[in-house]
Amino acid sequence: MFKIAIDAMGGDNAPEAIVAGVELARDQMPDTEFLLFGQLDKVKPFVKNEERLTLVQADEVIAMADEPVKSIRRKKQSSLVLAAQAVKNGDADAVFSAGNTGALLAAGIFIVGRIKGIDRPALMTALPAFDGPHDAFVMMDMGANAENRPAHLYQYGVLGSFYAHEILGYDQPRVGLLNNGTEEDKGDQVHKEAHQLLRYGSDKNLLNFVGNVEARDVLQGPADVVIADGFSGNATLKSIEGTALSMLKLIKDTIMNGSLKTKMAGAMLKPALKGIQSRLDYSQHGGAVVIGVNAPVVKTHGSAGPDAVANTMKQIHTMLEADLVGKVQQFVADHKEDLSARPENEVDGSAE
Amino acid sequence: MFKIAIDAMGGDNAPEAIVAGVELARDQMPDTEFLLFGQLDKVKPFVKNEERLTLVQADEVIAMADEPVKSIRRKKQSSLVLAAQAVKNGDADAVFSAGNTGALLAAGIFIVGRIKGIDRPALMTALPAFDGPHDAFVMMDMGANAENRPAHLYQYGVLGSFYAHEILGYDQPRVGLLNNGTEEDKGDQVHKEAHQLLRYGSDKNLLNFVGNVEARDVLQGPADVVIADGFSGNATLKSIEGTALSMLKLIKDTIMNGSLKTKMAGAMLKPALKGIQSRLDYSQHGGAVVIGVNAPVVKTHGSAGPDAVANTMKQIHTMLEADLVGKVQQFVADHKEDLSARPENEVDGSAE
Repeated sequence: MFKIAIDAMGGDNAPEAIVAGVELARDQMPDTEFLLFGQLDKVKPFVKNEERLTLVQADEVIAMADEPVKSIRRKKQSSLVLAAQAVKNGDADAVFSAGNTGALLAAGIFIVGRIKGIDRPALMTALPAFDGPHDAFVMMDMGANAENRPAHLYQYGVLGSFYAHEILGYDQPRVGLLNNGTEEDKGDQVHKEAHQLLRYGSDKNLLNFVGNVEARDVLQGPADVVIADGFSGNATLKSIEGTALSMLKLIKDTIMNGSLKTKMAGAMLKPALKGIQSRLDYSQHGGAVVIGVNAPVVKTHGSAGPDAVANTMKQIHTMLEADLVGKVQQFVADHKEDLSARPENEVDGSAE
Repeated sequence: MFKIAIDAMGGDNAPEAIVAGVELARDQMPDTEFLLFGQLDKVKPFVKNEERLTLVQADEVIAMADEPVKSIRRKKQSSLVLAAQAVKNGDADAVFSAGNTGALLAAGIFIVGRIKGIDRPALMTALPAFDGPHDAFVMMDMGANAENRPAHLYQYGVLGSFYAHEILGYDQPRVGLLNNGTEEDKGDQVHKEAHQLLRYGSDKNLLNFVGNVEARDVLQGPADVVIADGFSGNATLKSIEGTALSMLKLIKDTIMNGSLKTKMAGAMLKPALKGIQSRLDYSQHGGAVVIGVNAPVVKTHGSAGPDAVANTMKQIHTMLEADLVGKVQQFVADHKEDLSARPENEVDGSAE
């Protein structure tokens, strides 16, 4: 029996949408129990059927605006902290939240804990690939870290490959390094050295590195796992989101302010435009994963409704069923030496 | 009389489109002379009328794939190097190219020369703003530098403000720092300290700093001048381009593969979609500017036709007429002390 610890209070529609989503998932996943942490006077009224649900009182709530690290240190009785604590204590196998991303990340790192040998857990998300062999790719770090060292990026290559292989079912996932050019000597010192480490790992068959990829191309699917430092990964993800939203708005405004003919055409195209919007909606490919910690820790978007919550439960279930974290732990332990390698020709005097 | 030095050999359609664009511009700008550098056996056949055109033989050509710095050092007789040299010698006031961006940048920095007091010239481009008081904003550095220090970003605030004020005509341009959150303590060390320096410059009335802006929002126009380090600026620009192109392709494919009704609607919407495409085409707002050097050095896109070339000539003309470079030089000299300030509370021990 798998056990998922749920922060029932996180998200714009919590606890109602969370409870409804969990109940949907519960009905589809007979081998799973759910521990719901929250203010029970608010949670209970939404619970229809307590089968395989355990409700646990959490006096406090971490708000979206709370400072992540401080809030998990101070709000020890919050639904998020108690959910993470349940994993630490062995009472649950995974954590779910639709609330404060930074706080979930901090709970993952400081409560659930880093995998031994992984220096800096990352935030990973799936994005649509409009071309190439698969319809989605994963990218990390999306902003867990403001700064990364080359060794972190190398480790992300391994973590992302495991996810793409075990969870998405990709054979020999293609790992690309987000850089400002495709040539191997591109980028700043961090990216030059990360490139060498990924190349080394590829030569040792730890992963399948296909070289640098540019932000301009990522949506076309040149890699199944795109590795970025947290700062530019965040900028890239947000630019993609912002541009897609701006364009959809521009299209809608153009249609609404157009001639009668334009409006009619717009109405006829509505289903097609909806389809495009849905292909761009990367939350369809699952929640954001805190990767590199000792259990699945997954975040769905704040505005998630019951279906999105239930889909994220399925994603967590797949991660548990595949024993993703256990496999990564084993792999990292088995390849300690190769994973702590430094570039053979260090790019210049500065070691990282 | 203004004199613009033209690299007639750079760009996919060179020299034909370059010559045609220059002739268009010449006919509209009676106070300007054009020095065309190129292989004259290839250039001359396209010249219709030599009025205010001076043709200068350049034996070599810098190709798109040439390594920038090496190529300007080795190809001393190239059209680009000779055009930049003409500015250095006082024979011309500005340089134009549609060729190798990196080589133009290198020619700007190493031949035309940095403005005294500006440490790292940047590549600046205008992008559309879909909301806010103006229809475009400028952003830099778009990738001239793989790494930037806080002081560079501070200087970009000043350079960008001058451009937005003098060339775009914006009153008190709003300067924003691209960062991974809007709070002032966001980002890595470089961005934290850059934030403080920009705040300091704003307190001293050197510029009008409005704080951090996120990549997700830039196209909505939260700032008139968006400052970024070269690495994440490049990632942001390319993500915006890539997403816009992917979406337009997705829309076209959806229409072409749709039902008869969808195809008809698509045909009716064609003008509206063309309008959207044109609003997204940031080359309409001018070429990319190498900013921080001792003369206007401007790049138009490689596939530019005669109209785009002529528009870039107008942009250069505006820069010359406003004496943008002279004003920046004067301002930097007058505010040496404030511009070499360090953050009052340095964020931690590491001085940059």
